[in-house]
Amino acid sequence: MGSLLVPDFVPSPTQDAETLRKSFKGYFLGMGTDEKAIISVLGHRNASQRKKIKEAYQQLYNKYLIDDLDSELSGDFGKAVILWTYDPPERDARLANEVLNSRIHDMTRLQVIVEIACASTPDHLVAVRQAYCALFGCSLEEDIIAHVSLPVQKVLVSLVSSFRYDKELVDHSIANLEASKLHESTRMKQLDCDELILILSTRNIHQLKATFECYKQNYGFSIDQDITNCGEGLLESILKVVIWCIDSPEKHFAEVIKVSTDGLGTDEDSLSRAIITRAEIDMIKVKEEYVKMKNTTTLEYAVADDTSGYYREFLMTLLGANDSSF
Amino acid sequence: MGSLLVPDFVPSPTQDAETLRKSFKGYFLGMGTDEKAIISVLGHRNASQRKKIKEAYQQLYNKYLIDDLDSELSGDFGKAVILWTYDPPERDARLANEVLNSRIHDMTRLQVIVEIACASTPDHLVAVRQAYCALFGCSLEEDIIAHVSLPVQKVLVSLVSSFRYDKELVDHSIANLEASKLHESTRMKQLDCDELILILSTRNIHQLKATFECYKQNYGFSIDQDITNCGEGLLESILKVVIWCIDSPEKHFAEVIKVSTDGLGTDEDSLSRAIITRAEIDMIKVKEEYVKMKNTTTLEYAVADDTSGYYREFLMTLLGANDSSF
Repeated sequence: MGSLLVPDFVPSPTQDAETLRKSFKGYFLGMGTDEKAIISVLGHRNASQRKKIKEAYQQLYNKYLIDDLDSELSGDFGKAVILWTYDPPERDARLANEVLNSRIHDMTRLQVIVEIACASTPDHLVAVRQAYCALFGCSLEEDIIAHVSLPVQKVLVSLVSSFRYDKELVDHSIANLEASKLHESTRMKQLDCDELILILSTRNIHQLKATFECYKQNYGFSIDQDITNCGEGLLESILKVVIWCIDSPEKHFAEVIKVSTDGLGTDEDSLSRAIITRAEIDMIKVKEEYVKMKNTTTLEYAVADDTSGYYREFLMTLLGANDSSF
Repeated sequence: MGSLLVPDFVPSPTQDAETLRKSFKGYFLGMGTDEKAIISVLGHRNASQRKKIKEAYQQLYNKYLIDDLDSELSGDFGKAVILWTYDPPERDARLANEVLNSRIHDMTRLQVIVEIACASTPDHLVAVRQAYCALFGCSLEEDIIAHVSLPVQKVLVSLVSSFRYDKELVDHSIANLEASKLHESTRMKQLDCDELILILSTRNIHQLKATFECYKQNYGFSIDQDITNCGEGLLESILKVVIWCIDSPEKHFAEVIKVSTDGLGTDEDSLSRAIITRAEIDMIKVKEEYVKMKNTTTLEYAVADDTSGYYREFLMTLLGANDSSF
């Protein structure tokens, strides 16, 4: 369940587009941008409502809403609002492209691609691949090959190419058999073998959960523990994210938020991404996982504590929290 | 360009559904099925028109048109009409499933999967994968893994997982570089290496055509000739089909029709499939390629010569040929 709060009565897309337009500086002479109005509209609309608002805006003013948001807003707040306003497939295609075009390809960055491939529905993943082609003049796979080195390249290409069966159908004999194949790979420390990659990139999510369960029952340790024991390289870190995104995406995203807010400084890109991509999907569960991990504090508290201003207000809105209580 | 002839004036889907219903035996007491009427309706409607006829039929009679065609028609004619009446993604998902569930997995059968993966648009391939999941309770990739042995399994999984960029964009330095990588694979007779499979399953069709052209210019022989020289196993045959389906699908389908009609006996399944899947796409070019291959005879003549009755009449209709002239 998502944390996004959509009011019972929602204005028409045209009314919302007009509210946004009026909130921009220059509409009322001498007034600045009304960020609160932007948050109160966009922060309480789901993806299909936002899409209609963008269409209405374009029809009314012959301008792209995203372009206008870009000139009105700045900093982490601006980036977050714009990310939230893209259609989800375009948003994820842009996130993947940004990661691939960055100079550093560490786990923190490449895990974005794993999230898109393993913590999304098959139809969403296909829509991201379509959006990627439309936006960037090549396929997502081609850019992964161009920018990421082996063996992680091979894992990512297989994962983004998947189109998993999406119903709850589990064959327990397959789970047992494939748990033993996966165990053989971790035992031999051969994490880039074809068999492991094929299992992780073709089986349905429910089947894989059962396989991971068998793995733990039959071999004593969970597969992500055994992967961690194979080494501390990028391949190991990425495969651990793969297992988490398949087995329990809410645990993965709670971890992303924890890592991005723990200690000194904040990783705003990761924080925004985790909240924006999951606010309409499973943020309630992410919050529960966060509390299990941290015991003494809530996710809302951690986010409020690490952010400020309109950025904080916007994230709090997406988290379904009352900003004033923090 | 396709060979399908759709009349300028097309009756409404409801009228077409009524014509079909009246053509079925039992509608007029004592009369048999009116096969000619079925051919004259369905054999002159494109995929979107056939879809609407199916919907109208179901709404009017609360029955599936395909079920009724199945009880009215038989033999190769019945199979062909039903194949033609499925939505193209469902048709191809069923063709792939039939191939995977057959006891023999030779080139003649497995090439069907290559055609779907390499001679279709990216969007069509995704629609086939979606239809496969909906119809058969697992993904196409899972069934390939369950039924096809390595190394062909690996090639087919990668190809069906592709989502190629679909605009005409060619980088000639990449073409040169990848031609040399492909040449290294054929020279070393390592046709199942990751690099070859990755190139063939991620690059866009135009890029690959340029790469094959570079290959021939730089190394003297075409890549399919070099693949043939690597051996006569299933992997070599399948990769040759991959090259042809990418480089010149019309040549591939002309070859399929040639092989299925040459000599004694006819391979009706292959013949029907080639005509039905290409009648709306590039059958005019397939006919031209056929004439180039055979010199003395036309594709229409070969098909008419090898078939009879309503089956012949139906195929001739899809070929845009006047049956009476053969």
